[in-house]
Amino acid sequence: MEKMIITAAVTGGVTSRRDNPNLPITPDEIANEVYECWKAGASIAHIHARENDGTPSQRVDLYQEIVEKVRERCDVIINLTTTGWGQKGVEADRWNHLVSRPEMATFTPGSMNRKDSVMINSPAFVRRLAEKINEYKIKPEIEIFDFGMIDQALKLAKSGLLQEPLHFQFVLGVPGGIPANAKNFLHLKESIPSNSTWSIAAVGKGQLPMNLLGIIQGGHIRTGLEDNVYFKYGELAKNNVQLVERLAQYAADLNREIATPKEARRILGIGDDS
Amino acid sequence: MEKMIITAAVTGGVTSRRDNPNLPITPDEIANEVYECWKAGASIAHIHARENDGTPSQRVDLYQEIVEKVRERCDVIINLTTTGWGQKGVEADRWNHLVSRPEMATFTPGSMNRKDSVMINSPAFVRRLAEKINEYKIKPEIEIFDFGMIDQALKLAKSGLLQEPLHFQFVLGVPGGIPANAKNFLHLKESIPSNSTWSIAAVGKGQLPMNLLGIIQGGHIRTGLEDNVYFKYGELAKNNVQLVERLAQYAADLNREIATPKEARRILGIGDDS
Amino acid sequence: MEKMIITAAVTGGVTSRRDNPNLPITPDEIANEVYECWKAGASIAHIHARENDGTPSQRVDLYQEIVEKVRERCDVIINLTTTGWGQKGVEADRWNHLVSRPEMATFTPGSMNRKDSVMINSPAFVRRLAEKINEYKIKPEIEIFDFGMIDQALKLAKSGLLQEPLHFQFVLGVPGGIPANAKNFLHLKESIPSNSTWSIAAVGKGQLPMNLLGIIQGGHIRTGLEDNVYFKYGELAKNNVQLVERLAQYAADLNREIATPKEARRILGIGDDS
Amino acid sequence: MEKMIITAAVTGGVTSRRDNPNLPITPDEIANEVYECWKAGASIAHIHARENDGTPSQRVDLYQEIVEKVRERCDVIINLTTTGWGQKGVEADRWNHLVSRPEMATFTPGSMNRKDSVMINSPAFVRRLAEKINEYKIKPEIEIFDFGMIDQALKLAKSGLLQEPLHFQFVLGVPGGIPANAKNFLHLKESIPSNSTWSIAAVGKGQLPMNLLGIIQGGHIRTGLEDNVYFKYGELAKNNVQLVERLAQYAADLNREIATPKEARRILGIGDDS
Ligand SMILES: [Mg+2]
Ligand SMILES: [Mg+2]
Ligand SMILES: [Zn+2]
Ligand SMILES: [Zn+2]
Ligand SMILES: [Zn+2]
Ligand SMILES: [Zn+2]
Repeated sequence: MEKMIITAAVTGGVTSRRDNPNLPITPDEIANEVYECWKAGASIAHIHARENDGTPSQRVDLYQEIVEKVRERCDVIINLTTTGWGQKGVEADRWNHLVSRPEMATFTPGSMNRKDSVMINSPAFVRRLAEKINEYKIKPEIEIFDFGMIDQALKLAKSGLLQEPLHFQFVLGVPGGIPANAKNFLHLKESIPSNSTWSIAAVGKGQLPMNLLGIIQGGHIRTGLEDNVYFKYGELAKNNVQLVERLAQYAADLNREIATPKEARRILGIGDDS
Repeated sequence: MEKMIITAAVTGGVTSRRDNPNLPITPDEIANEVYECWKAGASIAHIHARENDGTPSQRVDLYQEIVEKVRERCDVIINLTTTGWGQKGVEADRWNHLVSRPEMATFTPGSMNRKDSVMINSPAFVRRLAEKINEYKIKPEIEIFDFGMIDQALKLAKSGLLQEPLHFQFVLGVPGGIPANAKNFLHLKESIPSNSTWSIAAVGKGQLPMNLLGIIQGGHIRTGLEDNVYFKYGELAKNNVQLVERLAQYAADLNREIATPKEARRILGIGDDS
Repeated sequence: MEKMIITAAVTGGVTSRRDNPNLPITPDEIANEVYECWKAGASIAHIHARENDGTPSQRVDLYQEIVEKVRERCDVIINLTTTGWGQKGVEADRWNHLVSRPEMATFTPGSMNRKDSVMINSPAFVRRLAEKINEYKIKPEIEIFDFGMIDQALKLAKSGLLQEPLHFQFVLGVPGGIPANAKNFLHLKESIPSNSTWSIAAVGKGQLPMNLLGIIQGGHIRTGLEDNVYFKYGELAKNNVQLVERLAQYAADLNREIATPKEARRILGIGDDS
Repeated sequence: MEKMIITAAVTGGVTSRRDNPNLPITPDEIANEVYECWKAGASIAHIHARENDGTPSQRVDLYQEIVEKVRERCDVIINLTTTGWGQKGVEADRWNHLVSRPEMATFTPGSMNRKDSVMINSPAFVRRLAEKINEYKIKPEIEIFDFGMIDQALKLAKSGLLQEPLHFQFVLGVPGGIPANAKNFLHLKESIPSNSTWSIAAVGKGQLPMNLLGIIQGGHIRTGLEDNVYFKYGELAKNNVQLVERLAQYAADLNREIATPKEARRILGIGDDS
């Protein structure tokens, strides 16, 4: 079986210090947390920037600072969000920070109701984002919140805006999206092209069970406070590292070896044509 | 096995006379087509109004006229759209026509990319539409274009805005939604509450195979020019009736009896508390 | 989509004239029935021999006579059973008749309870049968009555006793085996190697719905009085041809073209190395 | 979610001291091992007897001795095998030991190839075994090695020989049966009556992943040296307890509470009519 890539999603755009006081927020906190996760086995760091008061931010200089601080510490693969929480209306704010040249960036190919609002990624926006990602030679992590998004990604691949082999991140359990259970996960996994790679994430109490399925099924997994603030029922996580460490332990029990960043780059085809 | 309800979706909001010159457009044409479909076995007529030039319309008087003309002709269950194609911005236009008091109306509980645009049914809109439908004691047909919409419907049911048993219309193959194949259909069917009723529709070439699955699996089915303009590959349908008649023939071969409108009302719980 | 192969299983080893008085029994009857099915679109004839009184028979000369009479009439692919009903204890009786050199033969890679008895194909017998089939360069049709039989076939392929691409016949609804429904069928189909070909058969009232699934899903199908004696609920089939003709009609509606025997040979890789 | 029942299958009929030198064999060893497993959270002990040299045995006095020694130590639910390994031909040897009146016994409702032999449970034998189990008021654990066995169990239930709610033990990964993977497990789980209870076991390297699925999916689980002799890849288990303890740890992480024997009796309906 392929080695397993662990992504640490250390901060996110929604989790707050009220949810978990241990959330890393400043560039230094984020870079240090990423470094600790890397030591525990994470080979990708998925990053959202925040202002010092915790507000989600799309400031380019802030992303630049985080990226530099992470790079000083370790060779983890940097994966920046393009979700643009809190930025309404200014489309380019969702990709301007990619000038910091991360190796990966998230890419959500569709729209849906998300809790009490509508998460909009119109077909036209999605195409422009794909062009920008291609221009920067960034590996897109295709985020699948609902089933139909797979189809939209496949059409982009057909039109040449995404390149196979595709890499999918299944994000289950987001309210409005596909619920986090084994049946839904298998259905997603069985509906992507066979040459694809995939990772699984889930929010809240679905995080750990879906991660275990990822381990068992030979895929990759994402954990972190972005998706879930608890270590177990009724017990907040002390930090992101604790979540990564437990998965590394489970992986050892289940005979899955952990990929280093270098191995993860090979698995994902990052840097192939550099 | 339960008797099978056939819904005729005779016009829709997108199909044009350029797609199929036999599309019924005026109130008289629509009412006559519905009547013929009813004679062939349809017990529900799903209706969109059009201006005489074919433009989709939400005019209340137009819906009123169609409803009256259908009622003069037969006891088919009238199911009005609430999609509101072509009406941008004026929310109430999507429910004002319900004053004509149809027994059913479509109800789409979520948003998604649909071809080149975003089909928006925000959580707030969806709740207001549910309230309106409840006020008029209309049976909602919950349209499921993508998987996550089931979850949104179940949350509305939990909050009391939809009443169990729920009735779902799976609409497969819409670009941006869940593709039309047996695997996706089964997954949808297995993910709704066990006391629900369901019907299956699919657009384009998926229509007939998905209808056959509905027959085989003991559910209900929807056909019509709204979803598909062909009778078979390369051959346009002469009318909606031709599509209904073929399904009635298949149903006979497969030992499914066709429900009358009266039986359909019982199956769907329409008129229970009148 | 690949052209579709229809197999006519005209007699079988269990169906009797009490079940359906139109069952072909003698070599002439069988050959004539096969010929009519071939004219209606069948490209494979699956054959069991019977004594004149209807008793299942493994007599070599009887098989030889049937094979010759079919070959005089048409170029249909002949597929002989190796089930050996009614022959208890004499293992070679299950393959001696293969000296008539059919192009195909059934091959059941496992054991299970079948109605009130145990259908035994021990691992050792299965290996000997595979050797015999290989010796005669016959294409095996791997009959899958229950899920675990797939695994047994794959192990034979791994050991070199079966050659990929494999051809599977899913036979659903046999009491003791896997029930005939869409869920089970999809599960089987998704569990064979992706380079395999497959056909679907089901007994009794499952026959027509499972055949329709085969048409829809792009596979091949088997019909005939061996599996089911009814044309529809409460109405006995007049003959095998009537069943083949209906499937050809359905295939036309669903845009599946019917394979000629020549095309079927290419699809199945029959005669490749001759 | 229901509390989770852990079954310890401490010895089995196939595993030998050559496979794992820590295998408990004598009545004292078995009773002590069961006691330790019970302390670690097991509420059912699944037991096979062995002669002192390790040979599988159906001796009634040996079973009697084990049962008494276990009962002296703890209130674990005793579940005796009816497989009868190594006893060929004498049918009653498979149930005579039930005079020791265990609360549960395994019940395999079908036949299949198992590795290099045929595991035969003919329809007639299965009925007689059901009668014997009913006579003794033992709760049958219906062992499902392949898909079709579910159907055979349901037919026995229909005929009154098994009583709903049924309790199933899915045993995956036995060569000749259904392979151990998430897809097969979900398919089995979704194919039993909704009022059933179920547990999952798998042999060899499938044991731990399938147990994790059982925890995640809200079912019950079986572990032990009968099914698997390793703790992890390349490392033999020190004893059965080590396997039980790890599962209890995983259950804690995943918020599943462990059932005591008393709670397990309630969940399974054991002792209801006493
Ligand atoms: Mg969606
Ligand atoms: Mg079997
Ligand atoms: Zn994120
Ligand atoms: Zn409509
Ligand atoms: Zn046959
Ligand atoms: Zn056992």
